[in-house]
Amino acid sequence: MSLRKAGSIPFNKKIMPTPEQARAWIPQGDPVHDYDHVMRVYHMADRIGKAEGADMDIVKAAALLHDAIGSAPSANTKELRHNHHGSSAEFAAQILLHEGWPEDRIQAVQHCIRAHRFRFTTDRPDTLEAKVLYDADKLDVLGALGVARTIAYAALAGQPFYTQPSQQFLDTGKEIPGEAHSSYHEYLFKLIKIKASLHTATARKIAEDRHDFLVAFYTELAEEAAGNR
Amino acid sequence: MSLRKAGSIPFNKKIMPTPEQARAWIPQGDPVHDYDHVMRVYHMADRIGKAEGADMDIVKAAALLHDAIGSAPSANTKELRHNHHGSSAEFAAQILLHEGWPEDRIQAVQHCIRAHRFRFTTDRPDTLEAKVLYDADKLDVLGALGVARTIAYAALAGQPFYTQPSQQFLDTGKEIPGEAHSSYHEYLFKLIKIKASLHTATARKIAEDRHDFLVAFYTELAEEAAGNR
Repeated sequence: MSLRKAGSIPFNKKIMPTPEQARAWIPQGDPVHDYDHVMRVYHMADRIGKAEGADMDIVKAAALLHDAIGSAPSANTKELRHNHHGSSAEFAAQILLHEGWPEDRIQAVQHCIRAHRFRFTTDRPDTLEAKVLYDADKLDVLGALGVARTIAYAALAGQPFYTQPSQQFLDTGKEIPGEAHSSYHEYLFKLIKIKASLHTATARKIAEDRHDFLVAFYTELAEEAAGNR
Repeated sequence: MSLRKAGSIPFNKKIMPTPEQARAWIPQGDPVHDYDHVMRVYHMADRIGKAEGADMDIVKAAALLHDAIGSAPSANTKELRHNHHGSSAEFAAQILLHEGWPEDRIQAVQHCIRAHRFRFTTDRPDTLEAKVLYDADKLDVLGALGVARTIAYAALAGQPFYTQPSQQFLDTGKEIPGEAHSSYHEYLFKLIKIKASLHTATARKIAEDRHDFLVAFYTELAEEAAGNR
């Protein structure tokens, strides 16, 4: 969408999206990108953003709106799911324009939302606020929360929580024909690399324990599945 | 079903159900009670049964057949799901009769299968073989495997992996109206009590680490969800 100039509307910092509004925006029935996830990201972004000196109105609005559209495995098409950052950024612009935000600040929020994906995006976080949202969102795929969300996602996508990956997958990250993409595959393909992708010192510190917990979980899962425990 | 006397068929110990047969018996599309689960229970029952001196033909046949019917959250009705031990015991009798097993040994296998549930059963394991199957099956809801299976089950049942339980649930195990039965509820209601319900010394020893891992996981999950990590 093209944004009309908001110059005639005096910008009032108090007109901020609220968690109460977000409850209506977030799709129901997706236990992975649900309202609880958005609230955890919102609070984590608040913690990181304040410590890093970010513009907190941009950070908070972006956190509340970052998953408003279609990231569930049940989202109608793979395209919709893979472009949920783009769709959510469009939706965010509509909401913020309605709340009288000026164009430059709407675009700052949109950049945060477009750049929050680990894959399926060409946008990388350029601003501090976008780095804060990325980091807050990614901390939610580490630790026990990350384990739970990854396993729930796999179950809803019809994938097993554990199968032993092929040698090709271990070497290249590409499954052989017919190979399941289990939650253990997702751990090896994505989760284990998240800590190194974080931008802020605050998030990297929080990630230390969560990363170790994640690795301990999947190491134990593989050992138990192999009958070694 | 009523069993016809198998007296005219000479019983041949070699006619045993095999893992290859089990692959066809086990319902597909259920990541919680799938072929991998049955194989883990089969190998665990082998390990426990040998250590405890059980009749291994009974144990192995019961392990291969214990989840042959309808325990998935997608199973058509709650009644089918809650009675999957009864249905699987009936199915086991058909298979073993066909393979020439005598009635008393078929009934021994059926007792194992009927008594393997933690709830929804009036049958408690009376024989060593039934105790071995119960213990092997229950070890698969402890440890990282138990975490993964419980979260996958909740996701497929449309339940969240974590919500904070009500005080009533904590006191009585009954949810208040509208309260989700999250995987954390299941942990408090059932998983945490499994170790104490095990029958054999061999299983209790294996359960020590798995129980501790389970508790560590859900403790961490609750702390992360509350924003304390």
